[in-house]
Amino acid sequence: MRKIPEDLNRTIREFDHFVVLTHIHPDGDALGSLLGFTSILESLKKKVFCYLEEPVPSLYEFLPGSDKIHSDINKLRCFLGGSNGPVAAISLDCGDCERLGARQVELLGIHPFMAIDHHRAHRKYGDSRWIDPDSSSTGEMVYELAISLGVRVSWECAYNLYVAISTDTGSFRYESTTSRTLRIAAELIDHGVRPEIIAGHLHDNFTIHRLKLMEMVLGTLRLHESGKLAFITVTTDMFDKSGASVQDVEGFIDYPRSLRSVKVAAFLKEGKKRQVSVSLRSKGECDVAEVAQSFGGGGHRNAAGFRFSGKNVEQVYDEVLEALKTALNG
Amino acid sequence: MRKIPEDLNRTIREFDHFVVLTHIHPDGDALGSLLGFTSILESLKKKVFCYLEEPVPSLYEFLPGSDKIHSDINKLRCFLGGSNGPVAAISLDCGDCERLGARQVELLGIHPFMAIDHHRAHRKYGDSRWIDPDSSSTGEMVYELAISLGVRVSWECAYNLYVAISTDTGSFRYESTTSRTLRIAAELIDHGVRPEIIAGHLHDNFTIHRLKLMEMVLGTLRLHESGKLAFITVTTDMFDKSGASVQDVEGFIDYPRSLRSVKVAAFLKEGKKRQVSVSLRSKGECDVAEVAQSFGGGGHRNAAGFRFSGKNVEQVYDEVLEALKTALNG
Repeated sequence: MRKIPEDLNRTIREFDHFVVLTHIHPDGDALGSLLGFTSILESLKKKVFCYLEEPVPSLYEFLPGSDKIHSDINKLRCFLGGSNGPVAAISLDCGDCERLGARQVELLGIHPFMAIDHHRAHRKYGDSRWIDPDSSSTGEMVYELAISLGVRVSWECAYNLYVAISTDTGSFRYESTTSRTLRIAAELIDHGVRPEIIAGHLHDNFTIHRLKLMEMVLGTLRLHESGKLAFITVTTDMFDKSGASVQDVEGFIDYPRSLRSVKVAAFLKEGKKRQVSVSLRSKGECDVAEVAQSFGGGGHRNAAGFRFSGKNVEQVYDEVLEALKTALNG
Repeated sequence: MRKIPEDLNRTIREFDHFVVLTHIHPDGDALGSLLGFTSILESLKKKVFCYLEEPVPSLYEFLPGSDKIHSDINKLRCFLGGSNGPVAAISLDCGDCERLGARQVELLGIHPFMAIDHHRAHRKYGDSRWIDPDSSSTGEMVYELAISLGVRVSWECAYNLYVAISTDTGSFRYESTTSRTLRIAAELIDHGVRPEIIAGHLHDNFTIHRLKLMEMVLGTLRLHESGKLAFITVTTDMFDKSGASVQDVEGFIDYPRSLRSVKVAAFLKEGKKRQVSVSLRSKGECDVAEVAQSFGGGGHRNAAGFRFSGKNVEQVYDEVLEALKTALNG
C-alpha cells in the first residue's frame, strides 16, 4: 500500500467542493484517472466540477461518466463563484502546468491546488502534490487512494481506473507493469469490469479510413543506420485521400518500433500551415526525451515528441535523422 | 483453487518417466504450458522427454528451455525403450488427437496417456484428462497444478507460463481473462518474470518483410454487408515480392477485425499447390466455428479456420462470402 500524503487526505476529508483537472490532449490514463477520482469524491458526497479545455476525444467517449467533463470555462467560474464554501483543485496525471492548457494561470489561482501524478519528470506546480513514479499509471494511484480512504469502489470508478491502467501500460506490456499493477487490475475485475469490453472499445473501434491511411503510411517506411532507425511519415495529402482524421494515426508508430532491428522509431506528421509534429519511440537505453528537448519538446526516455513550424516534412526529416544518428551513436 | 483430478496427481507422484506433448503448429500457450509443465516435472526429479513433430517456430525460440523440445521420433523411441520403468504421456493444450500430428497412433500407444487442456470443444482421447474451459489458458492450469503439488515455481517455469497466459488472452484482453488470471500473472511476476521483456520478444520482433507484406495485404481489404464482413487476402506472389514468410502473417487478421463495423473478418491465405487456408474471427455471438466445421475445419466461437484444396483464391472467396452472409443473417 502506497503512503498517501496527509495534506491530500485532509483536503479530501475537509473540503466539500472540488475542481478536478487533467492534461490537454488527454490519453486513457488522464481521462480514466480523472473520472475514477471524480467517482470517489462523489461517493464521499462532494460537489465536483470536471474541467478539460477541449472536448473528450471521440475514442474515449465510451468512458462511463465522460459527459461529466466540461470544457466551458464560464461554467467553471459559476461553480467557483456559486459554491458556498472553499473549493480545492486537484489535477490528475498532469506532469507540467503548461499541459493544463490556455487557462492554466486562472486554474492555478484556485487554492489549495494539488497534483496527483506518476510522471518521473513531473515539474512541480500548485500548492502540494503526490507524485509516485513507481506507479504504472495515475489510475493505479487513484485506486490506492480509494482503498486508503475506505471508499467502496463503484463499477463506474473501477471501469475508468481499468482503462487508465491498461492503456498506460500498453495492455500490461510496459516496464512499468508490476505484480501490484496486475493485482489492482484483478480487484477492478472483481468490481465488475470486463476486460474484453474495454479492449473492444479501445482496439476494435477503428474506421476503414484508418486502415487505408495505415497502408499509405507503411509505404513511407524508411530505415537508416543498418535498420536501427526507422521513419514513417503522414502528409496532409494522405489524410485527404484516405478520409482519415488526426486521431486515426494513434498507435502507427508501434509498427516501425516493432521491427527487430529498430532502436528508435520516428513518425513525422505534416499538419496545416507548414507545421510538422514528430513522435519518437525508443527501446532500451536510448533517451529520446533528450532529443525532443533539444527541439523544444519533451517526454519520457522511451516516448517523446516535439513540433516544428515553418518547415516542410523533407527539411524536418533530415534534421531529425541527424539528431537521432548522434543520439544513437553518442 | 481448481480441483486437480486425483489420477493425474497420482500419476505425477508415482511415475518417474514422462513424455510430454503439445499440438502441431504450436502457439504461445502450447509451448509455454509444455515447457512450464516440463520444469515442474524436472523439479520433482522426473525424467522428461518433450516431443513435437516439427521444430519450434522461430518466434518462440526465445522461450527458456525451448531446446528441450525434440522433433526426432527415434529419440522418443529410445527414451521409451531405454527407460527402466513405466512411462506416462501427458499432452498440453491439445484439444483433439488429430493435432498431435502424423505420429498420433504411436504416441497414443503410450499408457497412461493423459490430457491437460482448456479448450471447450476438447474431443476426448487417451486414458484420462483434466479439462477446464473456465481457465484462460492451459498455462493457467499448469500454474494451479504446480501450486497443488507444492512445487517451487522456478524463473524458467514462471517465464513460460507467463508467455502461455499472456498470448492466449491477447495480452489480457480476451473474454477469458478473469481476476484469477491476473492474480496468477502477478504471482509469476513475483517469481521474476518481466512483462516488458516477454512483450519485446513477442511484439517487437518483426522483420521489414512483414511490414511490406502488411502494406500489400491491407491493400486487399474488401467489405461486404454494410461493412459487417471484412476480407483480406495474401497470395504467393505477395510473399515472393515482400520476402516475408508464412509466420509473418501472424496477427494480420486483427486489422480487419479491429474495424468498428465488422462482425466477422476472414483472411484467405494462398499456399503452394492450389491450397487456400482460411482464418475467421468474429465478435460477439456470431459462431465462426460452425462455419469452419461446415468446410471441414474447427475452432472456437470467435476464432476458427479451415483449408481448401484444388481451388483458387477467387473461388474460395465467393464460397466463404456466401457462407458468412448466411451465418451473419441466419
